[in-house]
Amino acid sequence: MLSFQELSTKFNQLFDSDQFPTSPSSLYEPGEYFLKIGGKRIRPILCLLGNELFNEIHPDSYQVAKAIELFHNFTLVHDDIMDEASLRRGQQTVHIKYDANTALLVGDVMLIRAYEFLQTIQPQYLSKILKIFNRTAREVCEGQQLDMDYSKIKDVTLDQYIHMITLKTSVLLAASLEIGAIIGGASESNCKHLYEFGRKLGIAFQIQDDYLDAYGNAADFGKEVGGDIKQNKKTFLLLHALQVANIEQKAQLNLLLETNDDDKVEKVLSIFNACGVGAWAENLKTKFMDEAFAHLESIAVVEVRKQPLVALANYLMNRNK
Amino acid sequence: MLSFQELSTKFNQLFDSDQFPTSPSSLYEPGEYFLKIGGKRIRPILCLLGNELFNEIHPDSYQVAKAIELFHNFTLVHDDIMDEASLRRGQQTVHIKYDANTALLVGDVMLIRAYEFLQTIQPQYLSKILKIFNRTAREVCEGQQLDMDYSKIKDVTLDQYIHMITLKTSVLLAASLEIGAIIGGASESNCKHLYEFGRKLGIAFQIQDDYLDAYGNAADFGKEVGGDIKQNKKTFLLLHALQVANIEQKAQLNLLLETNDDDKVEKVLSIFNACGVGAWAENLKTKFMDEAFAHLESIAVVEVRKQPLVALANYLMNRNK
Repeated sequence: MLSFQELSTKFNQLFDSDQFPTSPSSLYEPGEYFLKIGGKRIRPILCLLGNELFNEIHPDSYQVAKAIELFHNFTLVHDDIMDEASLRRGQQTVHIKYDANTALLVGDVMLIRAYEFLQTIQPQYLSKILKIFNRTAREVCEGQQLDMDYSKIKDVTLDQYIHMITLKTSVLLAASLEIGAIIGGASESNCKHLYEFGRKLGIAFQIQDDYLDAYGNAADFGKEVGGDIKQNKKTFLLLHALQVANIEQKAQLNLLLETNDDDKVEKVLSIFNACGVGAWAENLKTKFMDEAFAHLESIAVVEVRKQPLVALANYLMNRNK
Repeated sequence: MLSFQELSTKFNQLFDSDQFPTSPSSLYEPGEYFLKIGGKRIRPILCLLGNELFNEIHPDSYQVAKAIELFHNFTLVHDDIMDEASLRRGQQTVHIKYDANTALLVGDVMLIRAYEFLQTIQPQYLSKILKIFNRTAREVCEGQQLDMDYSKIKDVTLDQYIHMITLKTSVLLAASLEIGAIIGGASESNCKHLYEFGRKLGIAFQIQDDYLDAYGNAADFGKEVGGDIKQNKKTFLLLHALQVANIEQKAQLNLLLETNDDDKVEKVLSIFNACGVGAWAENLKTKFMDEAFAHLESIAVVEVRKQPLVALANYLMNRNK
């Protein structure tokens, strides 16, 4: 059995070679540029770990892992256009380095390339895996749409936000694990528990992400700290602050949401601090982690096989980027 | 055996119902809007005709036909963003009626939905069909990229243009036929001839499209006539005119390409006419049609089965929209 780190090294070696044909370079070179920026590549490793939980890793899992990472990068390239983000992982986004039309098409071709890797796997589970992949891909788009919708309305409940995050982030983590498990020959029930583990982990992951956007260190984080605050993005932190703030704090917060002054981030953070938002987020994250681990425990394999997943979950929850 | 018209009616009945889930409506309603604008829906019918050439139409062909039409609409929605087109089939494009972000995501989800329909077909040919579909989808993106690249350079040869058109338009027509043929149980050799028939037909189709953009009637055509000329789009007509024009005409044409005056279309058309571009395009179209029909003749099935394809090809070449 390989650890998360070992699998990560193995996958990176595989994925750091070119993933596209060479021509036309005006299309594929920007694609390679974005893929080579790197990133944590958690999702493909989750697929490999899902397989390894039940069986030795089958070569098909590497193909699917590549498909998943390409899919994830497709969403990032297109999200960056929609969010008008200039930096990703500390580097220029595709639509900034090239242009919006190129970024649009690069995203499209990444998605198609993902299906090209999927298509190579054994026919016995191709249809089943394709079904999960497709449903998940569509859910991720729904999540992005809800994210844009919610950015335009004032009152978003925590439940709505969690639903959006589940679609936008969690289901892909969950599906990555489940697809790996299918290749590993897992039972239906084990697959379901692993999916739920991933789904809960994903929500905890997003809480951490929102936290880092407000409280992280720019150099570690690879993108601008306070970006969410500047863009008035609904986050776990903002939604909770709006819920628990006193009348004065709430008025101040709503006023800050209308402005774009230089000290906006600083002032919003001071209200967050006064509302104890950081500690609340930590608790909520722990709650989802506990639920995730309960599902992991329900999976009928010997405990030792679960260790790499436990290690990964703990790493993700204590990361600073 | 059903005619093109009968298959068209059958497919339209199937496709005019909703193709997406209902929620979130902010994502799926714009998708349904665009699909319901209609269009000629040639590609899905080609798939059905490809099946019918060899065998009774299998229900899987309808699923693939839907996938192909969704894929085609995905490319239209994204191309309209890139080309900043305001009208499609006489109606507002998605990014105009809604906004660019919505259009981007609607296109994405159309592509994914296409794969959801594909995924339902029988495992025995799923992998094979997926492979053709993926390769074709990627080629279409390459064609769009080359189209954008060529719009920025001055000298594009006819061969380069035909290569671009092959990728952007022909391969999807060809693949639609071939995939239908695979479901119909056609031999490798018959599949290849049918693909080549579609590829040549596609080039002839584009010549007709370029011709209609310059010489069509706006009400029939469903989009602005002369749009290609206004945008200095490389077309069969422009490339040929630049090749055969005398020094004076060429200078005039190059000057017109620099301007955007109200009478630009009129003036460019008068040079096209002086250069005999219309008749030349007609001849070139006939050449590709002849080559297409030679491939159709090589297909080893009784002639009567080929009649619907012959009828369709003739219809496409004599259409006014």
